[in-house]
Amino acid sequence: MLFSDITLIDEDFSAREHAWVGTIDGRIAYVGGAAPEDPARFGEVYDGRDRVLMPGLYNAHSHAPMTLLRGYAENLPLQTWLFEQIFPFEAKMTPEDCYWATKLACAEMLRFGTVSFSDMYYHVEACARAVREAGMKCNLSDTLIAPDEKPYEEYPLAKANRAAIAELQGADDGRILVDFNVHAEYTTNPLSVRTLAEAAKEAGVRVQVHVSETRSEHEECKERHGGMTPVRYFDSLGLFDAPTTAAHCTWIEGEDFDILAERGVTVATNPVSNMKLASGFAPVPRMLERGINVALGTDGCASNNNLDMFQDLYVLALISKGAAGDPTLVSPAQALRIATRNGALSQGREDCGLVREGMRADLVVLDASGPSWRPSGDAASHVVYAGHGADVVLTMVDGRVLYRDGSWPTLDVEEAKARVEAAKARIVSEL
Amino acid sequence: MLFSDITLIDEDFSAREHAWVGTIDGRIAYVGGAAPEDPARFGEVYDGRDRVLMPGLYNAHSHAPMTLLRGYAENLPLQTWLFEQIFPFEAKMTPEDCYWATKLACAEMLRFGTVSFSDMYYHVEACARAVREAGMKCNLSDTLIAPDEKPYEEYPLAKANRAAIAELQGADDGRILVDFNVHAEYTTNPLSVRTLAEAAKEAGVRVQVHVSETRSEHEECKERHGGMTPVRYFDSLGLFDAPTTAAHCTWIEGEDFDILAERGVTVATNPVSNMKLASGFAPVPRMLERGINVALGTDGCASNNNLDMFQDLYVLALISKGAAGDPTLVSPAQALRIATRNGALSQGREDCGLVREGMRADLVVLDASGPSWRPSGDAASHVVYAGHGADVVLTMVDGRVLYRDGSWPTLDVEEAKARVEAAKARIVSEL
Repeated sequence: MLFSDITLIDEDFSAREHAWVGTIDGRIAYVGGAAPEDPARFGEVYDGRDRVLMPGLYNAHSHAPMTLLRGYAENLPLQTWLFEQIFPFEAKMTPEDCYWATKLACAEMLRFGTVSFSDMYYHVEACARAVREAGMKCNLSDTLIAPDEKPYEEYPLAKANRAAIAELQGADDGRILVDFNVHAEYTTNPLSVRTLAEAAKEAGVRVQVHVSETRSEHEECKERHGGMTPVRYFDSLGLFDAPTTAAHCTWIEGEDFDILAERGVTVATNPVSNMKLASGFAPVPRMLERGINVALGTDGCASNNNLDMFQDLYVLALISKGAAGDPTLVSPAQALRIATRNGALSQGREDCGLVREGMRADLVVLDASGPSWRPSGDAASHVVYAGHGADVVLTMVDGRVLYRDGSWPTLDVEEAKARVEAAKARIVSEL
Repeated sequence: MLFSDITLIDEDFSAREHAWVGTIDGRIAYVGGAAPEDPARFGEVYDGRDRVLMPGLYNAHSHAPMTLLRGYAENLPLQTWLFEQIFPFEAKMTPEDCYWATKLACAEMLRFGTVSFSDMYYHVEACARAVREAGMKCNLSDTLIAPDEKPYEEYPLAKANRAAIAELQGADDGRILVDFNVHAEYTTNPLSVRTLAEAAKEAGVRVQVHVSETRSEHEECKERHGGMTPVRYFDSLGLFDAPTTAAHCTWIEGEDFDILAERGVTVATNPVSNMKLASGFAPVPRMLERGINVALGTDGCASNNNLDMFQDLYVLALISKGAAGDPTLVSPAQALRIATRNGALSQGREDCGLVREGMRADLVVLDASGPSWRPSGDAASHVVYAGHGADVVLTMVDGRVLYRDGSWPTLDVEEAKARVEAAKARIVSEL
């Protein structure tokens, strides 16, 4: 495809007018200020007038099957919400439920420009089936909850992870990756974490983990572990020897910033979920200043309640200023990088997340003709502050169009909606 | 029009499935759980399947012509932004510029379900012309900036206000109202405020005013006026003798809550603008607890940067929990009431903002067929947390459809876009 005369969010996340971008064989093959010499070799010419082209969004922290719990229980204290509402519901979810809920999640993400996500859940094979059928990218991970003092290998998860790696690692030209995960400090014991870290290193996989989401979690960890914060605790167990994405980090302090920066840990910040559950405000500007790779996540649908990353991008840009009390912090370019390139890096996808020749063609086109986009100005600012996920008219993953103008070529969205509806009704009736 | 078998956000702001709502002569004439006896008398039947019907949104604080400054200057310290960027730009704006910018603002507001707004700006007659042509409702007000110690009557504004009242008060079946406004404590002197308050009372008009938006404004007022907060200061000058909407109130404290509640002052909270400019978090839950009428505003486009009230609704619902650290605060029903009914009350429109027989037919229809709306559940929660302004497919004001499926019957949006574009280019070239 050749995008002609389009406004481009370029590799510096600045707006560039009248750009031409061509894709061939799933990669970006041309980026220029004028038409390429042989335009026919790119195939379809996409008229870029009144359109913005930008890298696809990378959702760095999600629980896709939780679309099934959208709006199910809310406005409750955190513990009541989790233990009395969410966990009992989740216990009823079958692999088939997860498959359909992930399909619906993929439909929603593609509709709003997300090309890839990092997921922590259960029934990874069912979820992977949905993602592969959709044609998206995903770093899937099955959840380690390890209350007993025994090594990772003695949990059934170890066998499941080996099977997932054998079957799925690098599938679909690398679009599917299998990560390990550790649910959190308070749901696992040190031995299980240390042995999982060793296994991750040996298998060469990445790790996802929840870290310091709430103040109580952060403080209770310090009480349990001789003053060690969750970041120091996980570091002491060797977890960060594997490339790690730490979700939340809302309450990190002092030396935590140094450890995350020096160990190359990505922080996946989830500003919407953190506000909705009243968990706190992550110190994103300070993380950026310290050189930490900050990426952006939606978290699960039960605490968001949508998978439109443009909403999270908007809230991130606003709260980064608001919580720090400084309107100069986190520019549109920084926010866009967090939502795209930094997420790709957190997933180990070096050749993704930037519009640059040679990179994979993970692209989003926004319709910039609506009244919110006038007068024209810095398109990076307009995307972040004035644009909407609903302005997305095309989402492309590895050169393949997966959403365009209200249609999903790879997905039967009506069936996914009906199946999810039926699954929720069944579970509610069982509860 | 007769909305058949639709999901309704009812007068308690709860969701009600399979509702029927009919409008006749600009009013809601039927609300029921089944078809009315004589459906033909309502005219067109609107198929309500997969649709949500709710009251139109009331934007309680805006500066509509500032659409011209969307994204113009940002990520700057507040004083630099205001004095070096915004004010010089505004000084170049002509009545014609304000007319076209207001037209564009109306197009954007209608597209995202807003039916009425309270506006503080200049060139009220030009703005009114745009609003009247659009068919929207508006409480327009011309701005009192009064640095010198002289009474209101000696400012040219007094004459302008008299003319605006004579020409516009109650025009278009009451859709157009003229309010007075006081810019803020720090831009006016006590004599001008006291005399304006007297004139407002005499003329029977409402008042709009900026109050305690930033911490420095709040503290400096106390220094200047013997410890009086802006709320106490304005109350001491009799301003609240007229029905008043106080925008922001981010930093109100102590007795301020009692004064606002007892004097029946509406607080127009602007959570997006407050975050973007890093002004602080308004204590909305405490205001509600104290019985203050809280309404919702976008503020100007230069600090938001859009006029999609669903974004402000979403951010309001999130930050009310986030800033207070309590996930049980501000339910979807409360947030919806703030964005609709409370705004109508703040404008003195008692017969607006609720879906109830006899009320004016200010209605919005949302397309609830997208993936974000499944599984179905509490539609009030879905509207607030999962829905999008872009889901609006119909906006009706006093029974008249002003936006439907991408079209604005009363507005030439392409012309407004082009005129605003040209005006910005001209002003930038002059600066």
